[in-house]
Amino acid sequence: MPTIQKLNHIAIVVDDMERSLAFWRDALGIELHGIRDVPAEKSQVAFLPIAGSELELVQPTDDESGVAKYLAKRGPGLHHLCLETDDLDGMMAGLKARGVRLINEEPRIAADGKKYAFVHPESAGGVLVELYQF
Amino acid sequence: MPTIQKLNHIAIVVDDMERSLAFWRDALGIELHGIRDVPAEKSQVAFLPIAGSELELVQPTDDESGVAKYLAKRGPGLHHLCLETDDLDGMMAGLKARGVRLINEEPRIAADGKKYAFVHPESAGGVLVELYQF
Repeated sequence: MPTIQKLNHIAIVVDDMERSLAFWRDALGIELHGIRDVPAEKSQVAFLPIAGSELELVQPTDDESGVAKYLAKRGPGLHHLCLETDDLDGMMAGLKARGVRLINEEPRIAADGKKYAFVHPESAGGVLVELYQF
Repeated sequence: MPTIQKLNHIAIVVDDMERSLAFWRDALGIELHGIRDVPAEKSQVAFLPIAGSELELVQPTDDESGVAKYLAKRGPGLHHLCLETDDLDGMMAGLKARGVRLINEEPRIAADGKKYAFVHPESAGGVLVELYQF
């Protein structure tokens, strides 16, 4: 049976990367692993690993992406939760069979080859959940 | 220097514990470690550990608590992030020195003796951050 193995990351939408880093990196002392442009998500993302999990600070780079619209509507703050599974296809099949609404009906493939898919917040008590497989 | 050592838990506000468990426990297969009434927080909390971290599903048991007001205003969803530190007093002193706004000026002591304090979302890019020391 497919299982959830890890809390991979928490994504936080930010509207001012430098000001965010002044809190998470400088004030809390969490090490910044790097900042990358993620064109597929129309975002700039800062990665701050914490003991096998990670905070991701996501700043939209245009006004049209999902994350930009979220920021405009709700303001900066917690955005989504990413859970790692050992079997994304099996997990998604199981969710569909239970009537869970998925944003991605099929796994998407990231630039680095990893597979992921999002569950719709409507089926997850208002939480945007990303499922992810190495 | 005080350091952040772990992502202790993610708290999710829920308005229907059974329906939430049907997703997190039954559909995703995350083991439920237990459900406890937490009178100090006027909440019922379900604990679902994931590899050294934890999801906490929090359902208010009255209408007046902070979490109840959050639920009424924003609806169910991600509520706060709890980070573990090895030195809460030192961490709080450092945050105050940087002008970071804290909800708790002094550490609070939980029923089990652990120390915690909340940072105000205004100083954390819209994220409610709990700091916690074993």
